[in-house]
Amino acid sequence: MTEENKKIDKNTRKQIEMTLEGVRIEFPSQRPILLLKEKNGNRYLPIWVGAFEASAIALEISNIKTPRPMTHDLIVNIFKELGIKVETIEVCDIKDNTFYAYLNLRYLDDKKIKIDSRPSDAIAIAVREKCKIYSSEHVLKLAGIEIQTIEDEIKKFRDFLDHVTPEDFNKEL
Amino acid sequence: MTEENKKIDKNTRKQIEMTLEGVRIEFPSQRPILLLKEKNGNRYLPIWVGAFEASAIALEISNIKTPRPMTHDLIVNIFKELGIKVETIEVCDIKDNTFYAYLNLRYLDDKKIKIDSRPSDAIAIAVREKCKIYSSEHVLKLAGIEIQTIEDEIKKFRDFLDHVTPEDFNKEL
Repeated sequence: MTEENKKIDKNTRKQIEMTLEGVRIEFPSQRPILLLKEKNGNRYLPIWVGAFEASAIALEISNIKTPRPMTHDLIVNIFKELGIKVETIEVCDIKDNTFYAYLNLRYLDDKKIKIDSRPSDAIAIAVREKCKIYSSEHVLKLAGIEIQTIEDEIKKFRDFLDHVTPEDFNKEL
Repeated sequence: MTEENKKIDKNTRKQIEMTLEGVRIEFPSQRPILLLKEKNGNRYLPIWVGAFEASAIALEISNIKTPRPMTHDLIVNIFKELGIKVETIEVCDIKDNTFYAYLNLRYLDDKKIKIDSRPSDAIAIAVREKCKIYSSEHVLKLAGIEIQTIEDEIKKFRDFLDHVTPEDFNKEL
């Protein structure tokens, strides 16, 4: 590998800490979308997700409790009972418009494992575990949107979350 | 506890092996329902479930593969990577028309743990792990339907599964 290639490789593999700005339903497509923001920068990563996973994220960040454990609650309950810690999650790649992510798990004190996951599941778990969310620089380069004045868009996410109910996503909840 | 009460307690806690007859959408309500059958008997247990969980069960038993791991695939991938075995699942109770279940997990060779779960999640996991499904006698007594000639109903489930697509449950898949 040349010095130049090494630099590119190192740069694209760099992990950038992200914050979850929110999740909302985009009109008129009615498709749910989640928005990550670079913690120390101006790049945003919009990711289309399924209605069920969007609901799982929105319920948790809106602090809405369901009477029975939903599927992502079940996952974190399993982690808790077995002493498995979710250290971080990372959106690691994008291919053919599909985002890839993984969970970084630690168990038995020192064993570490990466589990392949859709970003929506990974983030639904991250908001429950309150763990850090990363994106690779590679993904941000390919799919990040750098906008200085995105306030109106962000406000839409926040307004939506202020009034979200489970029915906004899925009448079967 | 009297001898009579002990007998009742022992009987209601008895575990009955069940088979999954299928899952389908009930019309006109359009609510998904799954049907368990007593393996060595004539009692059936119909359980209303969410569209997402019904889809997770139907996709697996219809052997439809999705390009990326769906949420229940993620759960069994985590189990596989961490050496956790799902020994059985059990529908253990019904209260206020809500069914309760748990997963019986074994890990680190000999440790066993029960995890509280909705039956829909438990069964979506059971069909992937190919583990046995049980119901407590107590639940079957309260919610089981004993019908000798239920063939027409069963046929509806089987016909539905013969033609199921992910879109039957959830357009976001």
